[in-house]
Amino acid sequence: MNILISNGIILPMDVSLGNELYFKGYVGIEGERIAFVSKDRAVAEDFYARHTPDCMLIDASDNVVMPGLINTHTHVAMALLRGISDDVPLMEWLEQHIWPIEARMGYQEVFDGARLGILEMLMGGTTTFVDMYPYEEAVAQAAESAGIRALVTPCPMDFRMEHFENDWRQVQKRFSDSRLVTMWMGPHAIYTLSEKNLQRSISLSRELGTGSHVHLAETQSEQDNCMAQHGMSPTEYLEKQGLFSTKTLAAHCVVMSDHDIEILARNGVSVAHNPQSNMKLASGIAPVRKMLDAGVNVSIGTDGASSNNDLDMWEEMRTASLLQKVSTMDPCATPAYTALQMATVNGAKAIGREGELGVLQAGAFADILLVDIEKPHLYPHTNLISELVYSTHASDVDTVIVNGKIVVENRRCLTMNAQEVCQTAQKHIDALLSK
Amino acid sequence: MNILISNGIILPMDVSLGNELYFKGYVGIEGERIAFVSKDRAVAEDFYARHTPDCMLIDASDNVVMPGLINTHTHVAMALLRGISDDVPLMEWLEQHIWPIEARMGYQEVFDGARLGILEMLMGGTTTFVDMYPYEEAVAQAAESAGIRALVTPCPMDFRMEHFENDWRQVQKRFSDSRLVTMWMGPHAIYTLSEKNLQRSISLSRELGTGSHVHLAETQSEQDNCMAQHGMSPTEYLEKQGLFSTKTLAAHCVVMSDHDIEILARNGVSVAHNPQSNMKLASGIAPVRKMLDAGVNVSIGTDGASSNNDLDMWEEMRTASLLQKVSTMDPCATPAYTALQMATVNGAKAIGREGELGVLQAGAFADILLVDIEKPHLYPHTNLISELVYSTHASDVDTVIVNGKIVVENRRCLTMNAQEVCQTAQKHIDALLSK
Repeated sequence: MNILISNGIILPMDVSLGNELYFKGYVGIEGERIAFVSKDRAVAEDFYARHTPDCMLIDASDNVVMPGLINTHTHVAMALLRGISDDVPLMEWLEQHIWPIEARMGYQEVFDGARLGILEMLMGGTTTFVDMYPYEEAVAQAAESAGIRALVTPCPMDFRMEHFENDWRQVQKRFSDSRLVTMWMGPHAIYTLSEKNLQRSISLSRELGTGSHVHLAETQSEQDNCMAQHGMSPTEYLEKQGLFSTKTLAAHCVVMSDHDIEILARNGVSVAHNPQSNMKLASGIAPVRKMLDAGVNVSIGTDGASSNNDLDMWEEMRTASLLQKVSTMDPCATPAYTALQMATVNGAKAIGREGELGVLQAGAFADILLVDIEKPHLYPHTNLISELVYSTHASDVDTVIVNGKIVVENRRCLTMNAQEVCQTAQKHIDALLSK
Repeated sequence: MNILISNGIILPMDVSLGNELYFKGYVGIEGERIAFVSKDRAVAEDFYARHTPDCMLIDASDNVVMPGLINTHTHVAMALLRGISDDVPLMEWLEQHIWPIEARMGYQEVFDGARLGILEMLMGGTTTFVDMYPYEEAVAQAAESAGIRALVTPCPMDFRMEHFENDWRQVQKRFSDSRLVTMWMGPHAIYTLSEKNLQRSISLSRELGTGSHVHLAETQSEQDNCMAQHGMSPTEYLEKQGLFSTKTLAAHCVVMSDHDIEILARNGVSVAHNPQSNMKLASGIAPVRKMLDAGVNVSIGTDGASSNNDLDMWEEMRTASLLQKVSTMDPCATPAYTALQMATVNGAKAIGREGELGVLQAGAFADILLVDIEKPHLYPHTNLISELVYSTHASDVDTVIVNGKIVVENRRCLTMNAQEVCQTAQKHIDALLSK
């Protein structure tokens, strides 16, 4: 299947194009990949002629055409737990509400919870997400069937290491040919894994050549406990353990010294910044500006829907920008285009897919959004970048293409029955809460 | 005209009902006001029978029925300036971008800018706004013709005091019979008004029996300059000047000592908290939790769209809650219901309309929203209050009633032609920027 997107405002997020951030133009898709991005009508007409009759035409007038958003940290199945516990202290939240329910969740709950979260993400323009959760096969299955790209990681913790290695090897193998799903290792955090189990996770990553997705330095108590136990910060501890010898994506990185930041930069560790979750759980404010200045690749995640409470990357971009401004008392900190980079190209880099995802250029995978900017809250049009970061809503996303396939059209998801997905999730949570 | 809203989930924001925050039920509207709010089907049937055939029926199944949101601080016409300058230091923003363009705006630009902002607000469920801007008559006119409720204040500053008093008296008189528009005085700020002109504003408020809407303690430099000039804080200075002898709504209140907070509480001064604008301009974080604890009535405003960049009260509620949590490092600070109160009942109290607005109860004005909660990002339904504050978008608002009249239906504004409003705004800004 080939697609020609015409007459849109193209926002390629392509640094090689220099200062011309957007322009009127055309995008051609051949199969899974972008064939060309061009201002030139003749190029588009030639592409269309060559592929007729097997070329779909999308009129993108009044739409911004941009790379799909990359959510680099979530627990997508936790969409099922949205709203079950809010406005309570972190440990009460985890121990009295989240963990007891999670303990009752099985494959089916994770699968259907993931479908709900994926539906929300696709409709809001997220085309790739990075997950960490038990029953990782259910998450992978849900992603593949819904047509969203995913980097799925399991969630080893000390209390569920049994059978873990063999199971995960099998799952990893099962998805090795997937066009959409990649598997990494997901050592949960330093406070849930003994040194021995952390080492098992690192060995497994090395053996299978995968990266690692880890929670890091989310709270002051994680920092304090690590100092008391190991005499060093969580970042120093993970470096010493050798985790960063695998390609690492570290979520949160809220409590960070300059030395910690220097370690991330030196090891090429990417960060998934989760501003709304960090605010809601009162974890703190990650030093994003400092990390970017130090050369750390910072991307954006929503975290799970039960600590956010949505999977909306537009809000997350906006909050990332606004929160840095106020926390550094510098209105120039993390300007709008930087926020867009964090949600696209930086996300791609974080998962080792630079040049393949998060960008519109020939050869990249066709993960593309059409954003309808004919809305009162986006008028007047004077600065597209500002519009997208400071005013655009998930509901302004009109069309979503993943891997060359249209998955959302005219604000309707083509790969899932929204009503059925919602009702199924409702049944699960009603049953879980009544147990 | 009478309306019966049936089968909705009613969220009355009515403290007299105690802990039952919401319930399935009915709302009857007679003319401008709410006739009843009830769980009882028989009450609804009787109402309908008494008013047939002159009773419209709205089926609110799958919808939350709640009071319209009250935006207590904006400069609505600045919707015209959305995006013209972002990510720059505050003084550069004002002096090089905003003020030069504002100097070229006249009645028509303010009127059409206000229409754009009002369109966005109505479609997102804001039914009352508090404004401060020159050409206040244009704002009032725009509000009345669009069918939104407004408290409009002019914006006296030293450099445009000429003719001010006479002009404003006339405007105030002209709208004295309006069903939707109320006029207050709007002394801009201590740093734009001499003592003499501030006194003229206070005298005028006293003479005409209006309240005052003022910018207060927005930045550290305002605080520092006031200390240097008057040897006291802006709040202390305004108390000494006698402003608080008029009913006062103070916007921002970011840089506040405990003594300042005590002054607001003692004088019954209400606060309009503008979290996104304060973040974007790097002004700081208002001590909302402290002010609420001290008994200060804190409401929510969006500020103008050029420092936000939208007029979305849902985001503003969410940000208000999340920002207090992270700034106090307390996940229990400003819980969801408190944020809802700030955007409804507290807003009504801030403008002296307690019991009349921001609440669904018999006798109150019929300013009512239907929010469609059949959306993936709002599923599953476990906690309606969390859903509304942490996950609901402006685009989930389906129907909006102001003063008993339906102004938005099925996400379409009935009182304005959206396309025409947007295009007119575009023409104005294009002309202003090309001058």
